[in-house]
Amino acid sequence: MDIDLDGLEILSPEECWALLATAKLGRVGVSVGALPAIFPVNFAIDGETVLFRTGPGTKLRAAVDKAVVAFEVDQVDEQSRTGWSVLVVGQCSEVDGPRAVSDATHAGLDSWAGGERDHVVRLSSEFVSGRRIAATEGSG
Amino acid sequence: MDIDLDGLEILSPEECWALLATAKLGRVGVSVGALPAIFPVNFAIDGETVLFRTGPGTKLRAAVDKAVVAFEVDQVDEQSRTGWSVLVVGQCSEVDGPRAVSDATHAGLDSWAGGERDHVVRLSSEFVSGRRIAATEGSG
Repeated sequence: MDIDLDGLEILSPEECWALLATAKLGRVGVSVGALPAIFPVNFAIDGETVLFRTGPGTKLRAAVDKAVVAFEVDQVDEQSRTGWSVLVVGQCSEVDGPRAVSDATHAGLDSWAGGERDHVVRLSSEFVSGRRIAATEGSG
Repeated sequence: MDIDLDGLEILSPEECWALLATAKLGRVGVSVGALPAIFPVNFAIDGETVLFRTGPGTKLRAAVDKAVVAFEVDQVDEQSRTGWSVLVVGQCSEVDGPRAVSDATHAGLDSWAGGERDHVVRLSSEFVSGRRIAATEGSG
């Protein structure tokens, strides 16, 4: 078991993808007007890519256009103080027209934030990393 | 009630701070080696600043040193499809020595990830924004 400088277990890429498949809500980190921003998005896994939707004309849609972004998913149990976090870094590309509908449906991509969310973005996975968080005596 | 381009209710800064005070886990968006990254952190509110811990010598600690970062907190109910998301953008500064301990204790900052987390970072709040997510008929 590999441990990082914070004492957290380092997850293998296979474990990362398996954990990503169990979640529906992630966060995309982008730049908007030269400032960093993070937006929550519903997502689905399609092969080793991440699909998510953006609204038309939104800051998020403009920010992800061909951009390299960070995408993070975590699941934490506040009672047991255990959980995991997975980070995917890659380049975004918009999926066009009818393809967007079929790809999103195929991957089981769901979106439930208000408003129209017609635009589907595919994030490649250049880098995938993850950590498991476990409660330890005497931490923090 | 103000609505954004995605049909989401725009929260006032007062609502944002009130919601932040109800949560313990947030995500920090930074650059690591010119690539974007997002890390989950435990946090506490201290006035209109955010306090969180980093481990010594970690990527996160190096990345936040005097950096302008994004900090996001959300709370989402997958059943009712409602929730909120708050984004704070500001500059990080490390809180030194004994001050770190007293500030963290005063603010109720808790850290439960494994390993030593001796370094306390204070994030100023240059920009604070938030959205409420509500289920709507016919969305995505």
